[in-house]
Amino acid sequence: MSKLKNDLFLRACRQEKVERTPIWMMRQAGRYLPEYRAVREKSDFITMCKTPELATEVTLQPVDLIGVDAAILFSDILVIPEAMGLPFEMKENVGPIFHNPIRLSEDVKALKKVDPYTDLKYVLDAVKMTKSELNGRVPLIGFSGAPWTLMTYMVEGNGSKSFCEVKKLINSDPKLAHKLLDKISDAVTDYLNAKLEAGCDAVQIFDTWGGILSQEDFFEFSLEYIVKIISNLKRKDQPVILFAKGVYYKLNKLAKSGADVLGLDWTMDLARVRQRVGDKVALQGNLDPTVLYSDKKVISEKAFQVLESYGKGSGHIFNLGHGILPDVPPENAKFLVDFVKEASVDFHN
Amino acid sequence: MSKLKNDLFLRACRQEKVERTPIWMMRQAGRYLPEYRAVREKSDFITMCKTPELATEVTLQPVDLIGVDAAILFSDILVIPEAMGLPFEMKENVGPIFHNPIRLSEDVKALKKVDPYTDLKYVLDAVKMTKSELNGRVPLIGFSGAPWTLMTYMVEGNGSKSFCEVKKLINSDPKLAHKLLDKISDAVTDYLNAKLEAGCDAVQIFDTWGGILSQEDFFEFSLEYIVKIISNLKRKDQPVILFAKGVYYKLNKLAKSGADVLGLDWTMDLARVRQRVGDKVALQGNLDPTVLYSDKKVISEKAFQVLESYGKGSGHIFNLGHGILPDVPPENAKFLVDFVKEASVDFHN
Repeated sequence: MSKLKNDLFLRACRQEKVERTPIWMMRQAGRYLPEYRAVREKSDFITMCKTPELATEVTLQPVDLIGVDAAILFSDILVIPEAMGLPFEMKENVGPIFHNPIRLSEDVKALKKVDPYTDLKYVLDAVKMTKSELNGRVPLIGFSGAPWTLMTYMVEGNGSKSFCEVKKLINSDPKLAHKLLDKISDAVTDYLNAKLEAGCDAVQIFDTWGGILSQEDFFEFSLEYIVKIISNLKRKDQPVILFAKGVYYKLNKLAKSGADVLGLDWTMDLARVRQRVGDKVALQGNLDPTVLYSDKKVISEKAFQVLESYGKGSGHIFNLGHGILPDVPPENAKFLVDFVKEASVDFHN
Repeated sequence: MSKLKNDLFLRACRQEKVERTPIWMMRQAGRYLPEYRAVREKSDFITMCKTPELATEVTLQPVDLIGVDAAILFSDILVIPEAMGLPFEMKENVGPIFHNPIRLSEDVKALKKVDPYTDLKYVLDAVKMTKSELNGRVPLIGFSGAPWTLMTYMVEGNGSKSFCEVKKLINSDPKLAHKLLDKISDAVTDYLNAKLEAGCDAVQIFDTWGGILSQEDFFEFSLEYIVKIISNLKRKDQPVILFAKGVYYKLNKLAKSGADVLGLDWTMDLARVRQRVGDKVALQGNLDPTVLYSDKKVISEKAFQVLESYGKGSGHIFNLGHGILPDVPPENAKFLVDFVKEASVDFHN
C-alpha cells in the first residue's frame, strides 16, 4: 500500500498540526455530479453498491472533480440488514422499502449472523480496488449505520418518517428491541473490522435517527451500542467519526464514546461545542448544505463563519452539516472546496 | 361569557399558584379517538375545519372523554395560506398539497390580504360556538402556524420533507423570502387578534419547522416575525404559548420573545431549561408521545419523571412533546391525564 500523499484529513482527526483545514462532503459521491448520474443511468442503486468497479468509479469522482481531501466509499448503510436476511428495494423519490419488516420475536430470531468476508465481500473488494485506484492521493473513509438507525429502517419497513413502529417496539417490548440491537451491533462490529482490515483509513458511524429519541432513550437504545462497537474495533491508528444527527445534548458523553471525531449538523454552534468538549475529540462540520444553493459571495461568507466559529488550531474537519443535496450546482461544491483550502490557512499559523 | 370553572391552565401559564399541574395534549382532538373518526368518516378534513358545528363537536370530545384541562380549537394552520389565495388539498397519508406553490416574485405579489372577519369567519364562528358549549368548563386555546412554518408549506407545495425549495428561496433570494414572511405575518397577526376577540382564552404559535434552520437563519427568518406578531397582539390577559419544535438553543432569546409559555419537545431537559430561563416564562411539555404505546406502569413512570424534572412550584403545563399519535389507545391517554392530575398535587404544596 502506497504512503498517503495527502493525510491532512487523518491528521486533523487526530488533532495534529495541519497546514490548512481538510474538507470532504457527506454524500459527495452523489447525484449532484453529472458524472455520477451517467453511471447511475446504466445501473440501479443496489447494483452500483454491489459492483466494485462501479462503486470505485463513483467514489473517485469527487476526488478528481471537486478536489476533496478524503474519499468515502460509495455504499449504503442498508447492506447490513440485507446481509442479515432482509432484502430491500430502493424506490426512487421514496427511499428504501423492506417488504418483510421486523415486528415479532420470530423475525429477530430469523436474522442471520453476518460473515462480512462472504456476505459483504463486494464491499471489501470495492475498498481494495478504491485504495489501489486512489494510489495514496487521499485517505479512504468506510462507514456504517449505527444499530439504532439500522433498526429504525428494519422495523419501520418503509420511508415513512413517523417512526411509530420502532417507537412502539422500544416502548412495548424493550427486551426484544435490545435483542435486535445486539444482533445488529455484532454485524456492524464485524463489518467495520473487515473494512478496516481491507484498507479503510478511517470509519464513520452514522446515527441518522438518533435525534428522534428522548435523551434517556438515546443513551439506552443507541449510544450504548455505539460505544460497545467502537471498543471492539481492531484498528491500528484509523480514526472513528461519530455523526449522531440531531443529538445536541450531553456532548461530553458523546465525546467519551471512544470516537476520535464528532460530526455536527448545521444547527450546532461549533465554537460552543469546542469549548464544551475541549480537546477530547476533533469536530467535523457543519455548513448548512442548502448554503450551496446561494451565490459564491454568500457561500464564502458562510463557509468563513464556520472556520471562524471553530477558530484557530487543529482538530477541525470541514464538512457540510448533512449530505450534499442532489440539485446543487457542482461548480458551487468545487468553489466551496477551493475556498476552504485557501481561507483556512490563516487558522493554522 | 361565563366565568371559568377550571382555570388551572391559565394560572399555570401566568406562573400563578395552582393546586395541581394542568394537562392538555397537542392534537388531542384527533384520530386516536373513535368518536373523532366517526365524525371524520362523514366529512373530509377541510370540511370539518370549515363547519363550526363539526369543529366544535370534535374540539369538545377530549374535554368530555379524556378530561383535559384546556380545549384547543380543531382547525388547521393552513387555513391562512388558503385565505391568502392558495387552496390546498389534504391527501390521506401524504399531508397537504398546494398545487400552485410560491416560487416567484409574482406569486408573492398575487397573495391576497386576509380579512379574518370575512375570509376566516368560519373559524371565529367555531370559537364562539365552542366557548358557548364549553360553558366555562375549561379555557379554549386558539392557534396559528408561525410565518416560517406556513411559508415552508407554501413554497414546498407538497408533503416532501426535503425542504429544498424553501431553503433555495432563503439562500438565493432572501429579500423575496422576507417579503413573503411579512405578508404572512400580517395575516397571522390579524387572525390571532380576531380569535382573541372572538373568545379564545390563550393562543399557541406552532413553529413546526423552525428546527430545520441554522441558528442564524432561525433568528432571521422565523423568530423575528414571531416577536413582531406577539408584540402586535391585542390581548387582555390571554397568554401566548410558543412551540418552536427542534429549537433547543439560545432559549433565553425565545424566553424574551414576548411569549408567556415555551412549549418543549421530548428531547429537551425540562430541569435544565427551567434553570436557564428562570421565571421569565412558564414551560409546557414534554412527554415523548410514543410513551403512550407503553403499558400503564411505564406511562406513569415516565410521566412522573416529567413532573419531577420540572420540579416543585407553578409554571408547568403538562403536555406531550409533540402531537398525540393516531394509533394510541384512548384509554392510555385517559390514564395519563388521570395520573398527572393526581401525582402532580405533591409538586404544589
